Amino acid sequence: MSSAASFRTEKDLLGVLEVPAQAYYGIQTLRAVNNFRLSGVPISHYPKLVVALAMVKQAAADANRELGHLSDAKHAAISEACARLVRGDFHDEFVVDMIQGGAGTSTNMNANEVIANIALEAMGHQKGEYQYLHPNNDVNMAQSTNDAYPTAIRLGLLLGHDALLASLDSLIQAFAAKGVEFNHVLKMGRTQLQDAVPMTLGQEFRAFATTLGEDLARLKTLAPELLTEVNLGGTAIGTGINADPRYQHLAVTRLATISGQPLVPAADLIEATSDMGAFVLFSGMLKRTAVKLSKICNDLRLLSSGPRTGINEINLPARQPGSSIMPGKVNPVIPEAVNQVAFQIIGNDLALTIAAEGGQLQLNVMEPLIAFKIFDSIRLLQRAMDMLREHCIVGITANEARCRELVEHSIGLVTALNPYIGYENATRIARIALESGRGVLELVREEGLLDDAMLDDILRPENMIAPRLVPLKA
Amino acid sequence: MSSAASFRTEKDLLGVLEVPAQAYYGIQTLRAVNNFRLSGVPISHYPKLVVALAMVKQAAADANRELGHLSDAKHAAISEACARLVRGDFHDEFVVDMIQGGAGTSTNMNANEVIANIALEAMGHQKGEYQYLHPNNDVNMAQSTNDAYPTAIRLGLLLGHDALLASLDSLIQAFAAKGVEFNHVLKMGRTQLQDAVPMTLGQEFRAFATTLGEDLARLKTLAPELLTEVNLGGTAIGTGINADPRYQHLAVTRLATISGQPLVPAADLIEATSDMGAFVLFSGMLKRTAVKLSKICNDLRLLSSGPRTGINEINLPARQPGSSIMPGKVNPVIPEAVNQVAFQIIGNDLALTIAAEGGQLQLNVMEPLIAFKIFDSIRLLQRAMDMLREHCIVGITANEARCRELVEHSIGLVTALNPYIGYENATRIARIALESGRGVLELVREEGLLDDAMLDDILRPENMIAPRLVPLKA
Amino acid sequence: MSSAASFRTEKDLLGVLEVPAQAYYGIQTLRAVNNFRLSGVPISHYPKLVVALAMVKQAAADANRELGHLSDAKHAAISEACARLVRGDFHDEFVVDMIQGGAGTSTNMNANEVIANIALEAMGHQKGEYQYLHPNNDVNMAQSTNDAYPTAIRLGLLLGHDALLASLDSLIQAFAAKGVEFNHVLKMGRTQLQDAVPMTLGQEFRAFATTLGEDLARLKTLAPELLTEVNLGGTAIGTGINADPRYQHLAVTRLATISGQPLVPAADLIEATSDMGAFVLFSGMLKRTAVKLSKICNDLRLLSSGPRTGINEINLPARQPGSSIMPGKVNPVIPEAVNQVAFQIIGNDLALTIAAEGGQLQLNVMEPLIAFKIFDSIRLLQRAMDMLREHCIVGITANEARCRELVEHSIGLVTALNPYIGYENATRIARIALESGRGVLELVREEGLLDDAMLDDILRPENMIAPRLVPLKA
Amino acid sequence: MSSAASFRTEKDLLGVLEVPAQAYYGIQTLRAVNNFRLSGVPISHYPKLVVALAMVKQAAADANRELGHLSDAKHAAISEACARLVRGDFHDEFVVDMIQGGAGTSTNMNANEVIANIALEAMGHQKGEYQYLHPNNDVNMAQSTNDAYPTAIRLGLLLGHDALLASLDSLIQAFAAKGVEFNHVLKMGRTQLQDAVPMTLGQEFRAFATTLGEDLARLKTLAPELLTEVNLGGTAIGTGINADPRYQHLAVTRLATISGQPLVPAADLIEATSDMGAFVLFSGMLKRTAVKLSKICNDLRLLSSGPRTGINEINLPARQPGSSIMPGKVNPVIPEAVNQVAFQIIGNDLALTIAAEGGQLQLNVMEPLIAFKIFDSIRLLQRAMDMLREHCIVGITANEARCRELVEHSIGLVTALNPYIGYENATRIARIALESGRGVLELVREEGLLDDAMLDDILRPENMIAPRLVPLKA
Repeated sequence: MSSAASFRTEKDLLGVLEVPAQAYYGIQTLRAVNNFRLSGVPISHYPKLVVALAMVKQAAADANRELGHLSDAKHAAISEACARLVRGDFHDEFVVDMIQGGAGTSTNMNANEVIANIALEAMGHQKGEYQYLHPNNDVNMAQSTNDAYPTAIRLGLLLGHDALLASLDSLIQAFAAKGVEFNHVLKMGRTQLQDAVPMTLGQEFRAFATTLGEDLARLKTLAPELLTEVNLGGTAIGTGINADPRYQHLAVTRLATISGQPLVPAADLIEATSDMGAFVLFSGMLKRTAVKLSKICNDLRLLSSGPRTGINEINLPARQPGSSIMPGKVNPVIPEAVNQVAFQIIGNDLALTIAAEGGQLQLNVMEPLIAFKIFDSIRLLQRAMDMLREHCIVGITANEARCRELVEHSIGLVTALNPYIGYENATRIARIALESGRGVLELVREEGLLDDAMLDDILRPENMIAPRLVPLKA
Repeated sequence: MSSAASFRTEKDLLGVLEVPAQAYYGIQTLRAVNNFRLSGVPISHYPKLVVALAMVKQAAADANRELGHLSDAKHAAISEACARLVRGDFHDEFVVDMIQGGAGTSTNMNANEVIANIALEAMGHQKGEYQYLHPNNDVNMAQSTNDAYPTAIRLGLLLGHDALLASLDSLIQAFAAKGVEFNHVLKMGRTQLQDAVPMTLGQEFRAFATTLGEDLARLKTLAPELLTEVNLGGTAIGTGINADPRYQHLAVTRLATISGQPLVPAADLIEATSDMGAFVLFSGMLKRTAVKLSKICNDLRLLSSGPRTGINEINLPARQPGSSIMPGKVNPVIPEAVNQVAFQIIGNDLALTIAAEGGQLQLNVMEPLIAFKIFDSIRLLQRAMDMLREHCIVGITANEARCRELVEHSIGLVTALNPYIGYENATRIARIALESGRGVLELVREEGLLDDAMLDDILRPENMIAPRLVPLKA
Repeated sequence: MSSAASFRTEKDLLGVLEVPAQAYYGIQTLRAVNNFRLSGVPISHYPKLVVALAMVKQAAADANRELGHLSDAKHAAISEACARLVRGDFHDEFVVDMIQGGAGTSTNMNANEVIANIALEAMGHQKGEYQYLHPNNDVNMAQSTNDAYPTAIRLGLLLGHDALLASLDSLIQAFAAKGVEFNHVLKMGRTQLQDAVPMTLGQEFRAFATTLGEDLARLKTLAPELLTEVNLGGTAIGTGINADPRYQHLAVTRLATISGQPLVPAADLIEATSDMGAFVLFSGMLKRTAVKLSKICNDLRLLSSGPRTGINEINLPARQPGSSIMPGKVNPVIPEAVNQVAFQIIGNDLALTIAAEGGQLQLNVMEPLIAFKIFDSIRLLQRAMDMLREHCIVGITANEARCRELVEHSIGLVTALNPYIGYENATRIARIALESGRGVLELVREEGLLDDAMLDDILRPENMIAPRLVPLKA
Repeated sequence: MSSAASFRTEKDLLGVLEVPAQAYYGIQTLRAVNNFRLSGVPISHYPKLVVALAMVKQAAADANRELGHLSDAKHAAISEACARLVRGDFHDEFVVDMIQGGAGTSTNMNANEVIANIALEAMGHQKGEYQYLHPNNDVNMAQSTNDAYPTAIRLGLLLGHDALLASLDSLIQAFAAKGVEFNHVLKMGRTQLQDAVPMTLGQEFRAFATTLGEDLARLKTLAPELLTEVNLGGTAIGTGINADPRYQHLAVTRLATISGQPLVPAADLIEATSDMGAFVLFSGMLKRTAVKLSKICNDLRLLSSGPRTGINEINLPARQPGSSIMPGKVNPVIPEAVNQVAFQIIGNDLALTIAAEGGQLQLNVMEPLIAFKIFDSIRLLQRAMDMLREHCIVGITANEARCRELVEHSIGLVTALNPYIGYENATRIARIALESGRGVLELVREEGLLDDAMLDDILRPENMIAPRLVPLKA
């Protein structure tokens, strides 16, 4: 099946290996592929990470050329290779498992090797002819995995951030639109799953928009605060050993320009090399949004429960038949899926947290898992929000009559009458209603406690759903 | 406030310290108290742990006397002291914080010192006159914290296990009794919060009993499987260095006799010294029970939701006024508290898990947290189960008419008619019912699809809630 | 790009959809694919789940034929289709995301549709000609997702269990072999990262084998205890509504025979339909094994730390170059990857736990996430164990001289001398050694506390690593 | 034991109860105490929460007086009661368990009742004579638990925030001081527990200060951002039903003045009533600090490992004897305790997260657990930081000679020589050194690769621990 020609031989410190001839990755990537058959999720699943790696390599090459360490020819070839990765080419050459030992060395070498081989071809050489351009000496020049990799992760997160915010914003708009649409729908509010006091369905949906709006604002400011400090230039442990003293400033400045992100050098490179705090908090924020989405979806499932034996105040759009055995059953499958995504994000946050705690001395070797979990959480969150908006929220309709009927039969209505008929009467009416199964309003009318004009006034939605001065009684 | 006489001076490797004169604990306990002001929860909060420590010291003393290393006089005094601890005296002398460094050394020394001082007084000496009986040389003879402490934790868990099982069993009986009481109450089952098919409220409560019954059986077998292997005799790291070769067998045998628990020596003492696997799985099992309880309490809250705008199939007993602003409101406070207990137990399981992962080489120094969290989970679980049974389950009543009404108005009823009227008719009837708001039964009657006798037969509870051969149609 | 011929039209309750002509899945699968673009992990990633689904469908078909509800022709075609899935064909037709709403309906329908279309072709019909054999009416006959899906998950786990045990067993053997190989290598044990007392490297590795051996035994018994009770026959909510009373027994018996697994019907089908307890405990057990592996790998990384500035008692086999900037650096990449796998498994256990808590009333709609996380944990665990054994454990070598040297220079040696020179001398020698930087043995010799013969005897490895009666002094 | 006189009778919706005569709490508190015997941790354990409750009641009373709803006499008495609580009196009257059902109603009523009874006595009445001043009608006027309780939690956190920051700041200063003290101590850096390149011990400790400094800055800004928006005035569900329209503004303004905290009214009161997002993120931030502390303590334990068989670069101050069986052993008990605190905080964050997810519709009934866990995390974190600073960091000393010796014998030194002798020579020297056990420097000298002057220059600490231009070779 494979002829001699379908492989090329590469060599590293540990010996030689046959690399598939068509592969742009090289021997160190291949070793990593052989070592780590774990999650089944390769780096290529997260395109922003690949693009960020390419940008880091580009910035380093720019700095190295400017300092006179990298020839123009090599720089041009590396630049061409990086540009193609940024455009989305060759991503399937990033084959190493996201879960890997070595603190990201394999990811970094995967990038170095792919870029070197693309560049070699651009220079008119064959893949693997590293004597002309070397993955380590040239592509990785002045870098260590320990600075290039964490920098790329931060940049990758920043590069994907606008899309995350856009999905969240669209979802917020969808909730807000329903808030307007349902503004006039009076319904009972519930606390502790017990009847409370009236509100509008519009208020309920607007609150969903509000709570997510807070997360949008928070995510917008948190990402640049947490992720723009990079340790590029720190090399092995942050001392910048063997690096040109001018390199750090040049490389970070170039990276900021190339990426369009406001990157700055970390103030304490020793600290920045091993610190995972930014990821812990960023993941904690993603977890918060997931928790809010899950709570909202729980509410949607409760409010749409029924159609006959539940609350049934709203209808979710039918997305798929619900049961083969029960005719006509349609289930809230979209919110259910969001719940599960939220649980996975909570689990991801935990795995990331333990990994962050597991750092030792000058490095955190668990960083690949941290990168994996945070990219996974972001992707899941974004997809779940898009799904929720598109397949559920925009199609929600209100069962206005049902909402109104529940208000009118509710005992909680008595709270609104409280200031007019007194707490003693209110409690008595509530008890009679509960025991007899009758409505609060008919009892109040029957007893002549309030006349119809007064009742109409009190029960006008706008009067029940906001603070109000009790009008003087005649 | 304190005269010179109210302190005694004690001495250890690090120097001297003033110990309160009335204290039975000594200098090392005092150091630990000064070092660890953390959780505010002292060892004494877990009496079974104190009793277990006393039993371990008793067993060691018995073995040491039998081997000729401990004099009869000292043995008698130590025995007297241990007996008093087992009876519940002096527990408030166990003052060290449950969260402590030192892998339990402070807990072990707290026990050694308290026992030594009680024993000294029994011998007619003063507290602190360790020349007559020494906390380390005599009470701790042939032991290391590293074998005495893990042994005591396991034993402490075993000593409290029957009470945990009893609480669980009582709760199961309470659910089972409600299963019988509600056996005749026909209601709608719900899947995905949507109307499904009929069942009885008795089936629902019996299922609660069943699911907890599985946990009772599992907990009953798991505790002895996991906790009876002890590493007493392994001394510092499990090699038994400096211990008499006959000691291990004697000590463990005595401990089994004293405690009435089927304790056996661990086969691999090196492994047993650092291994926390038993606690991880035991805590995982407690977590499972907590999860089940939380699910059950969620159901109770759903089923009792209302009274007018929820499901309202059952009533939970009122335990306290629900709201100062909303007359007549009563909330499901007991299940709500159980939910929160369950969440804490899940959190405890996580803390314990991370602690278990944090062991290094020949010891796990995080064992104090492991002990803390597992004892806390057990206490919370037991108290929550007692609370749930006593203050909630036994007082639950069914809203039989409401249950029946929901069945009769449910569209899910059509599933039961499916085999008789055909899937096509069933789907059509379901759709008309849903759109018109009318009942399935009246539509079926109106269309003459089934006669009243047939309908009565199909809708007889016993026919709807179990598999049934479709009777041949005439 | 697609001609009319490349699609076929299918229809369900919600309308019509164009299904790719070559697809064996149908409209409901397609709806699910469109609805749930979330994790990117399709059902096909877990072949044992696909096989288990096929076996469930086969068992149901067998029972239905025997009861006279399914024709021989249809039965034969369904059987042929199931057999092919069991053989591994058509797995890539299982395209639905593992994270899905609908409590597994989409997975169940994916199986129903694929089987129906394979069967249709076997009968000489076209895919989609469901009038001849219907995914719901025939393949799903007498089943509900709510019984077929949980049954398939349990069975899928059982089907993969032997392979998991085999990987674990191989790893244990590898550790045990090293235990024998290193039996003579004397080294210092460490507690709290501080020098403790001597042991052998063989004891240390044997302890790894022992602790994993406990998990092997536990996993072996736990899986059948937890997973063999199935709710097949319970249909929608466990009442078995619309099922033939003889069906449950027949179907489960057939499934046991087909799968070779000792499956039995759940005693309380209502309970079994919604209960996730078995998964919670099974995942808790996987978590325990992961925790142990992580602790072991932490130890391996500590023991191999160095080569010059760490412990350096053992060498891990070099798997890949460690650093581009630091010549000659080789890192413990395999244990590092195992740590990360363990953290993910802990995270999975959490997601699963929350999902289990999220069940409501007669069903747990979060079951797809539960299935996803437990299958993921098992796969990761198995792969990590294989990797660890093959790429690390078998190649570990001991630095015997280094181990011996650390023992001889250790102050902890004084503990072994304790019974011979007395605690007072021992403490004094320890202090002098610590302050002067000199060795314990030379100090003892210098002071003439013990003669060389005695010292040799005490320090003989077999005398230091086990309990020993102190020989009478002359 | 108790005479008739030692109780007073109180009454609520559910009936009458005997309240201890001397108790300032009343019947509803007593019901809660009887209902919830769970964690054993009463509200009084968190004094800032008690003070915050008092301030909320004061602010409400001020607003109600200004609006003419509360008489001057009642206002004066309530004010006197609140002032005493703020001063720290009567805190032991806050007896309800922190874990409670009812969404905080019992905590709110505990405050209402205690304040009412103190006020009654101040007015010259007896405790329990609520006809003169009523816990609900007067103390709780215009409030609901659902707005007063969340407001008090936020305020309580703010009130304790400065102390938390101060503890963190002191710890940072302690690390920074060590950074200066150890500035000249050259040592090897380690990545993946393998020898990497030189750095100073001062850099290492300064990095600890830096990483915690980031958390200080973050905590400082995050608390006001997250916690100053309060929902006071929203009453039952945020609609402000039955509240005077002017009340919200007045009450929040007063609360800001009284507390000195920049409190503002929430923009969307419906959202603010049930939203727990602020707590999720704040707890996530506490978790991040805990993770960093745990990582630092892991490092301290590694760096102080030994004394002979570990790294032994630093000495932690001895805090207590380490072992009864091993003479002279001293253990890193303080960092070990910090690790365990961190694990508990991670567990707390999880419990809180699940509780946040468990909110339903217009309220989150799990808020008591959220409050409990976040107050517990803060207290533990603060105490652990104080302990770490006082009992560990300030007393750390460096083993300078050991650090220097490890550098000189390290193979990692070759990285520093790399630019001068070339990568090929460097790799060869490294291999020879590793195989022969000899030092890199002696080999370089032996081969005459560099002269002594050059070597001295390269190996000067200031030249190895920062970027440096390679000097032109002659």
